[in-house]
Amino acid sequence: MSLRVRGAPAIGIFAAYALYVIARNLDADSYEAFYEKVKQHSALLDSARPTAVNLSKQLHRMLRLVETLRELPVPKILEAMHKEAEQIRQEDVEMCRAISEYGLSLIDSGFGVMTHCNAGPLATSEYGTALGPILLAQERGIALSVYCCETRPLLQGARLTSFELHRAGVDTTLICDNMASIVMREGKINAIFVGCDRVAINGDTANKIGTSGLAVLAKHYGVPFYVCCPSSTIDPQCPSGDEIEIELREQREIKEMFFEKPAAPSGVKCYNPAFDVTDNRLITAIITEHGICKAPFEKSLRKCLV
Amino acid sequence: MSLRVRGAPAIGIFAAYALYVIARNLDADSYEAFYEKVKQHSALLDSARPTAVNLSKQLHRMLRLVETLRELPVPKILEAMHKEAEQIRQEDVEMCRAISEYGLSLIDSGFGVMTHCNAGPLATSEYGTALGPILLAQERGIALSVYCCETRPLLQGARLTSFELHRAGVDTTLICDNMASIVMREGKINAIFVGCDRVAINGDTANKIGTSGLAVLAKHYGVPFYVCCPSSTIDPQCPSGDEIEIELREQREIKEMFFEKPAAPSGVKCYNPAFDVTDNRLITAIITEHGICKAPFEKSLRKCLV
Repeated sequence: MSLRVRGAPAIGIFAAYALYVIARNLDADSYEAFYEKVKQHSALLDSARPTAVNLSKQLHRMLRLVETLRELPVPKILEAMHKEAEQIRQEDVEMCRAISEYGLSLIDSGFGVMTHCNAGPLATSEYGTALGPILLAQERGIALSVYCCETRPLLQGARLTSFELHRAGVDTTLICDNMASIVMREGKINAIFVGCDRVAINGDTANKIGTSGLAVLAKHYGVPFYVCCPSSTIDPQCPSGDEIEIELREQREIKEMFFEKPAAPSGVKCYNPAFDVTDNRLITAIITEHGICKAPFEKSLRKCLV
Repeated sequence: MSLRVRGAPAIGIFAAYALYVIARNLDADSYEAFYEKVKQHSALLDSARPTAVNLSKQLHRMLRLVETLRELPVPKILEAMHKEAEQIRQEDVEMCRAISEYGLSLIDSGFGVMTHCNAGPLATSEYGTALGPILLAQERGIALSVYCCETRPLLQGARLTSFELHRAGVDTTLICDNMASIVMREGKINAIFVGCDRVAINGDTANKIGTSGLAVLAKHYGVPFYVCCPSSTIDPQCPSGDEIEIELREQREIKEMFFEKPAAPSGVKCYNPAFDVTDNRLITAIITEHGICKAPFEKSLRKCLV
């Protein structure tokens, strides 16, 4: 299966709409037949990506709705499914907006901001998470200079983030990942915003490979380091980053992908972890739709889960 | 003029041989005519690259030799030029060998070693500087695992270093620059060796972009950070890294070079510093052909200049 939708919130929203569209085209003459087929398609959609919590969560929500409405005729159930998908999207919009507002409260006009990978509109529904404060600032006429790390090997920073920010009119500069140190050393950065894929209850966060290195640099150069994510990303079952499994991806992403010709001899091994874990002591704050969480994170994060 | 020879020592050696080969083919019927033409070609060669000290240094040495031998017939002068070029190469071999031996004294069997960019045989004459200790270890049956950072944007780590190490039979793993943090966090690295382009007398060093970030990570994770360079790289006129000018290179190296198609929209700006400065407080030792220099660097480096 090829990767067409990315970004946990976008995947969840897409799955809800997809299930509705599939259901609308089903050929079923009873509730039972209809429900059985919807369930099968939901399982298939759910198998597309193993790690994104939002996918199974939103599919589960859609299925439960169908069960609840079993007494209604199928056309009425379809109508409700459509509304529910809209509702999921709307909730995501509000969640992103809240994160963006909280993030914006940490930014002043003239700030240099750095970001890594992509946690913008293309990964969510509206403003995005890490890009939310930046896009909101732009809307309100607060001038920022934003540095996007290109994010090797898959270049999400170059291909998605620089595109999104530039399109929105933000003053955008693309750098290679290894230039983050000199840019911070030159005093160009006042805050770093990144998204994240999973937050352990002690505040350790897993995010796109390279995030932990940025956080170490930020600490060294005295730059605040902010992680933006919906509260659904907090995993109360996960005590620390040591328990977060890191996905290893294929070697060709490093040596071959995007290049005109392979960059290294075929016999050379590559190590390609897709994520890394950032130690909670390197994180200034974790921003969710419920507010800005600071250390001790176990306490502040639990408040977001209520 | 296109870039065909890189690595300061290799450039110096190449220039000396080149001047000899040019001189051999000159059509001159007197010493004066011969000297004048050699001098012109030397100036042309010298104009090829502005920053490499070795280029002008070795050309100057060849020219001085020609002046000293003005009483001899031209064929005898040519013979001496040939010998001098051989001598320059031989001195470089010995310098690299000495650096490699000192570096090797800091390595144990089973070590994980990280390196950045390329300071190997392709940049020098034999073992190289930063790769010298690794290649010498390999020759002596000391098993190492070496991680090469790919070194964006020009990928010298992938294209040159991983090639050189793999060819020598070293256990070589290529990573993207932003993976250095997770590799160190996982405890895989016991020492980092990098080359360098200029050393200020306080021990601040300029090297390929990304080096300063690696040094910050090394400090954070408790990994020793070694800079390998000939003593000719030490600049006693340069008090600190703040006085080292950083070359800014063209944007297309980041967005377009090596890629099948541009990685970011054409309107997006790129910032492309080719080097960065590593603070002397992040450096465990600077290894020259005269020995291992530790802090306070001003004192230890001056000893290498005698």
